[in-house]
Amino acid sequence: MIKRIHHVGIVVRSIDEATSIYGGVLGLEKTKDETIEEQGVRAVLLKLGDDEIELLEPVKEGTGVARFLERQGGLHHVCFETDDIERELQTLKDNEVELIDRETRDGIAGRICFIHPRANNGVLIEYCQTED
Amino acid sequence: MIKRIHHVGIVVRSIDEATSIYGGVLGLEKTKDETIEEQGVRAVLLKLGDDEIELLEPVKEGTGVARFLERQGGLHHVCFETDDIERELQTLKDNEVELIDRETRDGIAGRICFIHPRANNGVLIEYCQTED
Repeated sequence: MIKRIHHVGIVVRSIDEATSIYGGVLGLEKTKDETIEEQGVRAVLLKLGDDEIELLEPVKEGTGVARFLERQGGLHHVCFETDDIERELQTLKDNEVELIDRETRDGIAGRICFIHPRANNGVLIEYCQTED
Repeated sequence: MIKRIHHVGIVVRSIDEATSIYGGVLGLEKTKDETIEEQGVRAVLLKLGDDEIELLEPVKEGTGVARFLERQGGLHHVCFETDDIERELQTLKDNEVELIDRETRDGIAGRICFIHPRANNGVLIEYCQTED
C-alpha cells in the first residue's frame, strides 16, 4: 500500500547555495548529507514536517542527474513510501509498467526502485520502503 | 510552521489518460475533479495515503500551465502545507523572497500562494492552508 509522499527530489547546481534558501528562509532542517560515489551525486535530505526534500547535486559528469541539470534542473522525481516495496514492484511488473529497476536496491531513503518516466507522463517516480 | 508536503502538481496533456495510470495501476483514488475556468485548468486530486497528487490539464491556451506542457510537462510544483499561511507569506516578504502572489488566494487545496521559481532554483513552490 502506498502510504504517502516520502520526498520530492530536486536537482540543483550547488547544494550549498540551495540550502541557504531551503534551510535559511524556509527553515528546513538538514537530516542527512552524503555523497553516493557510484551514482555520482551528493544528496542532502531536508526535514519538512514528517516528509522530506531531497536535494541532489551531480558530482560526476555523464550521469542521468548531471544531464537533467544541463537540460533544466529543478523538480526531478517524487518518492512514494510503501510498506511492501517487493509487492509494489511485483504489481508493476504484472501490469507491464516500464521500469528503471527490475529489482529493489538500497538508496538514501531505504529500499528503493524507480519506475520509468515514460510510464507516467514524463514523471520519474521512486518507491521506497524505509527501515523504521 | 511547514507541516508536510501536501501535494505534488503534475501537468499532463490528458487527465483521463493519466488517471488510467495513476488511478489504475498505482491504485490512487480520485477525491476531486474540477475545472477552474479563470485559471484555464482542469484539476484532479488523487489520494496518496495522507497526501495528494494534483493532475493539471490546461483547458485554455496561453496560460502558464499550457506553456509548461508545451515546454516539457510532468512535475510542475510542490505544495507545502502550513498552519498559518499569512505568517509564512509575511516571512517570505520580510526575507525579500521573489513571489508570484503577494496576497493569499483561494485554490483547490484551500488558501494558497506561490513563490516564484527564480527564488528556489527553478522549483515552483506553493504554500497552502487547508480549511479543516
